[in-house]
Amino acid sequence: MRNFAVFGDICYSDSPDRLVCREDSYVVCENGKSAGVFSVLPEKYRGIEVVDFKGMLVTPGFIDLHMHAPQYAYRGMGMDLELLDWLNTMAFPEESKYADAEYSSAAYSIFVKDLVKSPTTRACIFATIHRKATTELMRRLSETGMICFVGKVNMDRNSPDYYRETTAGSIDSTVKWLEESSGFENIRPIITPRFIPSCSDDLMKELARIAEERKLPVQSHLSENMSEIEWVRRLVPESSGYADAYDRFGMLGQSGPSVMAHCIYLTDEETELLKKRGTFVAHSPQSNMNLSSGMAPVRKLLEAGVKCGLASDVAGGSSIDMFRAVTDAIQVSKLRWRIIDESFRALTFPESFYLATKGGGEFFGRAGSFEAGYEFDLIAIDDSSEAAPFELNTVQRLERVMYHGNSGFIRGKFAGGRRIF
Amino acid sequence: MRNFAVFGDICYSDSPDRLVCREDSYVVCENGKSAGVFSVLPEKYRGIEVVDFKGMLVTPGFIDLHMHAPQYAYRGMGMDLELLDWLNTMAFPEESKYADAEYSSAAYSIFVKDLVKSPTTRACIFATIHRKATTELMRRLSETGMICFVGKVNMDRNSPDYYRETTAGSIDSTVKWLEESSGFENIRPIITPRFIPSCSDDLMKELARIAEERKLPVQSHLSENMSEIEWVRRLVPESSGYADAYDRFGMLGQSGPSVMAHCIYLTDEETELLKKRGTFVAHSPQSNMNLSSGMAPVRKLLEAGVKCGLASDVAGGSSIDMFRAVTDAIQVSKLRWRIIDESFRALTFPESFYLATKGGGEFFGRAGSFEAGYEFDLIAIDDSSEAAPFELNTVQRLERVMYHGNSGFIRGKFAGGRRIF
Repeated sequence: MRNFAVFGDICYSDSPDRLVCREDSYVVCENGKSAGVFSVLPEKYRGIEVVDFKGMLVTPGFIDLHMHAPQYAYRGMGMDLELLDWLNTMAFPEESKYADAEYSSAAYSIFVKDLVKSPTTRACIFATIHRKATTELMRRLSETGMICFVGKVNMDRNSPDYYRETTAGSIDSTVKWLEESSGFENIRPIITPRFIPSCSDDLMKELARIAEERKLPVQSHLSENMSEIEWVRRLVPESSGYADAYDRFGMLGQSGPSVMAHCIYLTDEETELLKKRGTFVAHSPQSNMNLSSGMAPVRKLLEAGVKCGLASDVAGGSSIDMFRAVTDAIQVSKLRWRIIDESFRALTFPESFYLATKGGGEFFGRAGSFEAGYEFDLIAIDDSSEAAPFELNTVQRLERVMYHGNSGFIRGKFAGGRRIF
Repeated sequence: MRNFAVFGDICYSDSPDRLVCREDSYVVCENGKSAGVFSVLPEKYRGIEVVDFKGMLVTPGFIDLHMHAPQYAYRGMGMDLELLDWLNTMAFPEESKYADAEYSSAAYSIFVKDLVKSPTTRACIFATIHRKATTELMRRLSETGMICFVGKVNMDRNSPDYYRETTAGSIDSTVKWLEESSGFENIRPIITPRFIPSCSDDLMKELARIAEERKLPVQSHLSENMSEIEWVRRLVPESSGYADAYDRFGMLGQSGPSVMAHCIYLTDEETELLKKRGTFVAHSPQSNMNLSSGMAPVRKLLEAGVKCGLASDVAGGSSIDMFRAVTDAIQVSKLRWRIIDESFRALTFPESFYLATKGGGEFFGRAGSFEAGYEFDLIAIDDSSEAAPFELNTVQRLERVMYHGNSGFIRGKFAGGRRIF
C-alpha cells in the first residue's frame, strides 16, 4: 500500500468536545493509517501522491453503530407504528423475504449501493436469520472497500412461524455461516441475537459460547421501549433487569466488543454495568422518535463513562445518512434537557460530531479521527452548492453541512486507506 | 389564463386525516383553480394541454406558515444556543446587515432561488426592519410566481442599538413600505410586530390601527420559550398572558387573518382565545428542537378547534424544506405523546401532510388541496431515484418521499395556476 495524502479543509475530533479544523492542509495515509495532519507536507512525504479536494470539507468517515440492512427496503414507510407492532407489521414480513436468494440479492444490491454513497465508512449491520443471504450481503459489502461487522440474526421464539428458527437450527446455521463468511476482506462476522424476547435461554447460552470460543463481538438491542422492557422482565424473571439479562449470558463485552442499540431507560445500576463491561451504546435518535420510543440520556451515559456512538438504525431510522444522526442527536438531547431533566445539558455540535466519528469508531479499534495512528477513513464533502452572502468559517461550514447535507455532497470516500470512490 | 391539466399520481388531503391518492389521473386547472381530479378527462376538457408527470407523485404545493428570509443566510449554524441568546448572537447581527442594499440583494437572491426550488408554493415571511430591503425581497418574490405574505419587521425596544427603530420611525417606515409594496402580483404585505418583547404598547396600538384600517393580516411569535413567556409577563403585567397581550391590541385576527408561530406553552384559556379569534398556529417543530424550545401540543390545539399549519421557521429551523416539516411534526408529536402526555396521540402521516398543505393553506383562502375550487398550487415529485426491491403503493411512496426527499426531487411547480418551473 503506497503512502499518499489528501488535501482540503480538514476537520476531525481529537477529544469529546473539541473539533480541530485545519484549512488547506494535508492528511497523510501511511500503510492504511493516518500519519497526521500537516499544513505543509513534511520532508519524508515530499513527492507522494496528493488527492486534491481543495475547498472541500475533509472529515473522518462516519461510523454507524447499528442498522438493519434488510429493513432498508421499507425506509420511511409505515412509520405510524410503535416498536412491537412495527416489528410484526413491517420488520418480520419484510425480513422473511430474504429466504429467497433472488429477492435478497436485489434488495441488498440497493442497500449496498446507497451505503457506499453515504457518509458511512464503517457500520455494525444486522442481516436476517438467513445464512445464505447474510453471506451474500457480506460478499457484496467486501467488494466495496467499506469496513463492517455483519450479523446473521438469531431468533427462536416470539416471532411468527414464518420468521423463526428452532434453537438447534439457529445454532447450526450460525456455525455454518461463521465458517463460510470468515474469508471476506474488511467484513467480519458479529454474533447477533435479535433481542432477549426473540432468543431462548438455550440459544443465548450457545451463542455466548460461540462468541467466547471465537473471540467474536456481539450486537443486540437493549432498553428501547417500555412495553419491551416489561416483556423482558416477564421473560427473564430471575434477572435484575434487561442489561443483567444479557450480562448473565456474557453478552455485554466479555468475548469481544459488544454494542447495544438504544439504551433509553437504563437504571443507574444498568448504566454502571455497561460502563464496567465496556459495552458500547449505539444511540439512534431518529429511530427513537419514529418508533415513539423516547429520548436516550446520552449526556448521562457519557458522564457515567459509558462508551457511545451514533447509529441510523435503518429502518426504525428512516435515513441511512449519518449527517442526520449528528443533528438528530443534538435536537433530541435539547428536548430531553428541556422536558425531562435540565441537569443533563444538551449535546453540542462538536460533541455529536465526535460521537458519530471517534466515539463510535472505538468499536473498530482506532477509527474515526485523523490523529496519527488512526485508520485512514475519510470523506470529502463538497458544500459549494450551499450559497451564503458572507464568508463562512470552517466550523460554520461543517455545522451547516451536517444540518443540510446528504450523500449527494460526498465527492470522495476512503476506508482503511483504500479509496471507495 | 388557459385551462390545462397535470397528469401523474395525484395525492392530496380532503379532510384532516384522509389522504386521497389517484394513480395515473388528471388534475385540471381552470382559471387558476382546480376543477377537480379525474381518471379520464371529462368531455369539456378534451383537447386541453396536458402537462405529463407520468410516474411522479403530484401533490398540492406546500404552505410554509412562518419563516425569516434574512436568517436563511445562516441556516444550520450556531445551533447550540437557546432562543434569547440566539436572537442576540445570530439573528440581530445578521438582520441588521440588510440595511445595506448590496448585501440584502445578494442574500435575498440566494433565499428566493432556494425557495423557488423547494416544495413551498405559499409562505408567510418575516423580512427585517428595513423598508427598502423588504420591498426588494417582495419584488424578487413577485418575479417567481410564488404567492407570499411578506412583512417588514417592527421593533422599537429590547434589541441592540444597531438593530432597533424608534416608535415613530417604525410607523413611518411601515406606512411608506405599505404604499410602495402594494402593487406586487401575488406578494402581499402582512403586519409584522416581531414579538411583544420587541414592540412597545404605542407601536402595537398603531400597527393594529394600520392593520384594521387596511384590512391587513398579521404575523408574529407567541409562546415559544419559557424565558420569553416570563419576560412578556413582566413587560405586560396588565395582560392575563402572552396571547391576551396580543389580543388587547387586536392582533389575533380582528383585522384579517392572523398567524402566530410556535404556541408551545398556551394555557387552556389562551387556546380557547385562539380558537375564538380564528388565529392560525404556525407549528415549527424543527425550530422548537433546535432552539430547545419544547414540543407544541398540536393534537390538543387541533382537538380544541384551533387552526394549524406547519412552518420551517428558517433559520430557527435549519431546513427550508417542508417535507422535513411534515416528518419533524410527526416525530416531535410522538416524543410528546411518550414523554409529556399520552392522552394526546401522535400525529399520523396523513394528518401531518394535511397540516402542511390544506391546513396551512386556509390562511390563503382555499389553498393546499386539489378539491374543486382550490387554488391550483402543485408540485411534481420524482421519486424514481429511490429504489426498492418490491412494488410500492402510492401512499408508501408519498410517505417515503416526505422522510427522504428534498428540493432536488421536484420536477415541476405551479402556484395559482401559473407554472413556476
